[in-house]
Amino acid sequence: MKVVIIGGVAGGATAAARLRRLDESAEIILFERGEYISFANCGLPYYIGGEIKEKSALTVQTPESFRARLNVDVRTRQTVTAVDRKNKSVTVRRENGEEYSETYDKLLITPGAAPVRPPLKGTDKENVFTLRNIPDTYRMDEYITARKPKTAAVVGGGFIGLEMAENLTRRGIAVTVIEAAPQIAAVLDEDTACDLQNYLTEQGVRIRTNAKIESTDETGCDMTLLSVGVRPESELAAACGLETGLRGAIKTDDHMRTSDPDIYAAGDVVQIRNFVTGGEGYIPLAGPANKQARIAADNIAGGNSVYRGTQGTSVLKAFGMTAAATGLNERAAKAAGIPYDKVFLYSANHASYYPGAQFMNLKVLFHKESGKILGAQAVGFDGTDKRIDVLATAIRAGMTAGDLCGLELAYAPPFSSAKDPVNMAGYVIENLLSGKVRQIHWHDVDSLTGTPGLQRIDVRPAAAYANGTIPGAVSIPLAQLRGRLGEIDKSRPVYVSCQTGLNSYIACRILLQNGFQAVNLAGGYRLYNAVRQAKTCNASQETT
Amino acid sequence: MKVVIIGGVAGGATAAARLRRLDESAEIILFERGEYISFANCGLPYYIGGEIKEKSALTVQTPESFRARLNVDVRTRQTVTAVDRKNKSVTVRRENGEEYSETYDKLLITPGAAPVRPPLKGTDKENVFTLRNIPDTYRMDEYITARKPKTAAVVGGGFIGLEMAENLTRRGIAVTVIEAAPQIAAVLDEDTACDLQNYLTEQGVRIRTNAKIESTDETGCDMTLLSVGVRPESELAAACGLETGLRGAIKTDDHMRTSDPDIYAAGDVVQIRNFVTGGEGYIPLAGPANKQARIAADNIAGGNSVYRGTQGTSVLKAFGMTAAATGLNERAAKAAGIPYDKVFLYSANHASYYPGAQFMNLKVLFHKESGKILGAQAVGFDGTDKRIDVLATAIRAGMTAGDLCGLELAYAPPFSSAKDPVNMAGYVIENLLSGKVRQIHWHDVDSLTGTPGLQRIDVRPAAAYANGTIPGAVSIPLAQLRGRLGEIDKSRPVYVSCQTGLNSYIACRILLQNGFQAVNLAGGYRLYNAVRQAKTCNASQETT
Repeated sequence: MKVVIIGGVAGGATAAARLRRLDESAEIILFERGEYISFANCGLPYYIGGEIKEKSALTVQTPESFRARLNVDVRTRQTVTAVDRKNKSVTVRRENGEEYSETYDKLLITPGAAPVRPPLKGTDKENVFTLRNIPDTYRMDEYITARKPKTAAVVGGGFIGLEMAENLTRRGIAVTVIEAAPQIAAVLDEDTACDLQNYLTEQGVRIRTNAKIESTDETGCDMTLLSVGVRPESELAAACGLETGLRGAIKTDDHMRTSDPDIYAAGDVVQIRNFVTGGEGYIPLAGPANKQARIAADNIAGGNSVYRGTQGTSVLKAFGMTAAATGLNERAAKAAGIPYDKVFLYSANHASYYPGAQFMNLKVLFHKESGKILGAQAVGFDGTDKRIDVLATAIRAGMTAGDLCGLELAYAPPFSSAKDPVNMAGYVIENLLSGKVRQIHWHDVDSLTGTPGLQRIDVRPAAAYANGTIPGAVSIPLAQLRGRLGEIDKSRPVYVSCQTGLNSYIACRILLQNGFQAVNLAGGYRLYNAVRQAKTCNASQETT
Repeated sequence: MKVVIIGGVAGGATAAARLRRLDESAEIILFERGEYISFANCGLPYYIGGEIKEKSALTVQTPESFRARLNVDVRTRQTVTAVDRKNKSVTVRRENGEEYSETYDKLLITPGAAPVRPPLKGTDKENVFTLRNIPDTYRMDEYITARKPKTAAVVGGGFIGLEMAENLTRRGIAVTVIEAAPQIAAVLDEDTACDLQNYLTEQGVRIRTNAKIESTDETGCDMTLLSVGVRPESELAAACGLETGLRGAIKTDDHMRTSDPDIYAAGDVVQIRNFVTGGEGYIPLAGPANKQARIAADNIAGGNSVYRGTQGTSVLKAFGMTAAATGLNERAAKAAGIPYDKVFLYSANHASYYPGAQFMNLKVLFHKESGKILGAQAVGFDGTDKRIDVLATAIRAGMTAGDLCGLELAYAPPFSSAKDPVNMAGYVIENLLSGKVRQIHWHDVDSLTGTPGLQRIDVRPAAAYANGTIPGAVSIPLAQLRGRLGEIDKSRPVYVSCQTGLNSYIACRILLQNGFQAVNLAGGYRLYNAVRQAKTCNASQETT
């Protein structure tokens, strides 16, 4: 069997290695347009920032090591320019312009995705960069070393843009993130992104949301990084008539086989099935790309491996903070027409009495009827990635809120609490589903404000109340509530808030059982205020 | 409804709080023999070590705060001495010896477990301690402060004993752990405990396994902590005729109801169902205790909550190291008669090219036929608890090895690799189940050594080979293997090893497809050597 692989970075290299282990006798030819294969593409920002110091660290495998270990015919600096499906051959162009053709029995297309170039003036200037590969990285690093820019604009506030914001800051450059949407980190919803944004602002990163620019000159910065997303490099596939879908990504079946039974595709070039909705999606991520490539190799070698879809689990290190997500966010749930609700927890990452406990904002989306977990997002510090990985596993398993309650997670004071935040999320959802409490959200607060006869109470201690509260809320600390029920009107709803939504839940239970129409504010004053703070910060920057 | 709760630490306090939220009008009386309720029992070792500095940190709730917040009638320093099931009342003794009785509609028994006192001479001496509650903790702390012991013996090398070994070391005391079994940390198997033992030895903790002593004087130490496990405090339950089981623990149904329909029990006093085997078990842990107590409260309040069993997820911080486990270890799998095999991974906790990567020894047990995950253990550093939590969730979901392959976990270089160690475990198991490779284990090595005609090769680079190898192994580095096949005899098995079992797997694939009878050494030379090192260390200590 002769297998040709187009693209030698994450997917292509993984597939070649797996294929060789499955079939020692196969002829495997790996074409890579660039100089490097299997390089650490997710590590490139950290080379810019100086955390990764050695160039050699970025090139995990070299063409030579790949040949020696895997007996794969690696051909770098050669570009596949056409696929002749009828004759099962590809046309290859060398750097000197010479062309030749190479036949295949099976073809695997893994060219990845290219940075989207936004329609801005000035993107061809020498101080404007994108970051996809090692030459891009060296060029930016050399520019910074030589020109010592004092300011940089990062256009696009996604996870990669924010990684670059951190790493450029580490180089002593003042960074402004310019995001066209109303929030950064589109993987997150506004109410988890707000904590990330507020933290980044504290670290000295300037963040401009709702920011439309027409030219890179408008940034006023010494250099500009374009980081507005990627598009599948599917031109070759489209040109030879393979079926494509969303954003032009190649369509495959769950065996990673394209519309041509002898051609497979994997990685950032393919359209995927969304694991949670079952619908079509385009979610370019390194983990799924690797899995898809391995599955393609299995099937090329005559196996029967199946890819069950992508759920979009991802994570960002932003200075000391971690932001992570899995499954659906609210936009995705709405787009899929799924009836969902959400809970917010502000939980310590480990026992609060053990030194160093830090809080995370954990949001979990669930199906309103079945209680099935649909998605989760968290912003915090140590242990944030752990909770998202547990929830990612729960989503894979199709778990419900009740299942989260029963999860038996590792507890000792330095690692968690006897009730882990993931268990707590299950409890909170179960309390909603079983009607033990009703809740409203931070985005309901301002629309209610001003309603005639609106009744709000804040059950935090008086000192916390004095530092700020929900508009119009009256202070009745939780410990006094049972003795002050007479101050509340049973004939109207009473909206209850505390700092995080936990004590106000306890208050709601007291009130409900005493005949009051209590409604809890999910996420409490903290979340309401964090969203407001992020918005205020944007607004003040827009006017300066 | 009048509910009496016996025992006010983890389980009792949790149940009282939940019950109040469910039933504002219930009369709830909480009896606690000691002075403190709801104290941080898992935090006590860290108070001894000085990481937790304030006494107030240990008492999360006080009787006063409990009364104020929850309207619970907390009666400390009162001991329930008898239960009259016929008349539904309990006899209570005050500290002054006075007795009175209190009726109940529902009774919840949550007294916990008491330290086992081993049959040693000298356990009543003032320099001999156990650690269960706050007075125990203060007594030990005061003794250390006043007497400045230079040496301490910890009798019992379980997780609590090892936590104490660390915390006594932090007080400047030279610690010897005395363990009767052949290994420490019985939650782990020998081949994961070895890394923990070797690390603790490096930290200066002396570890004596297979160590039988008859008197605390034999330790030769200035003080002794007894930490050989706990037994359920079920005397009261047994005396009133409730059904008991393993080690005398109270039997309950999955609603935490005892053999008396008006009496519930939860926490370290109850026998549980092992979630993985379905059999009876006694696994005292704080997380399960809390869950059981909450479930008991739900059912007392007329709900229908079910406890689905305990899988034994637990974690230890030992200086900088983390050891964690979930599900069955080999002893438990053997005892249950489950046909299992195991895989070992020695994986970096995050991308190896990102600074600070550290390795963990990850062992996963699986059902030999179905591939279902039965248990997992890991010893390593940052991110070790995360992998065990993911595997604990996978076990709860009944996942197989194939499901582990498909898990989509959060990847960025500071957090993981594109293929997380948990994914890798799935891949390794799948390769075994699908017959792509056969393996032997470290404990097979020495028994094979000396077999006539035994054929072993070590595929590591020559420099690694020169530093030590499996007895009789010949060096054929992986990159040279394809060219040196003629040196291997096809008519006999060839046992292949490398450092961790990964490159030797690749070598096995080359050999198998070329007609050789290749067998992989799981865990590689590293694991074989780590177990040997732990044993050698024990042996050398026994002769000194």
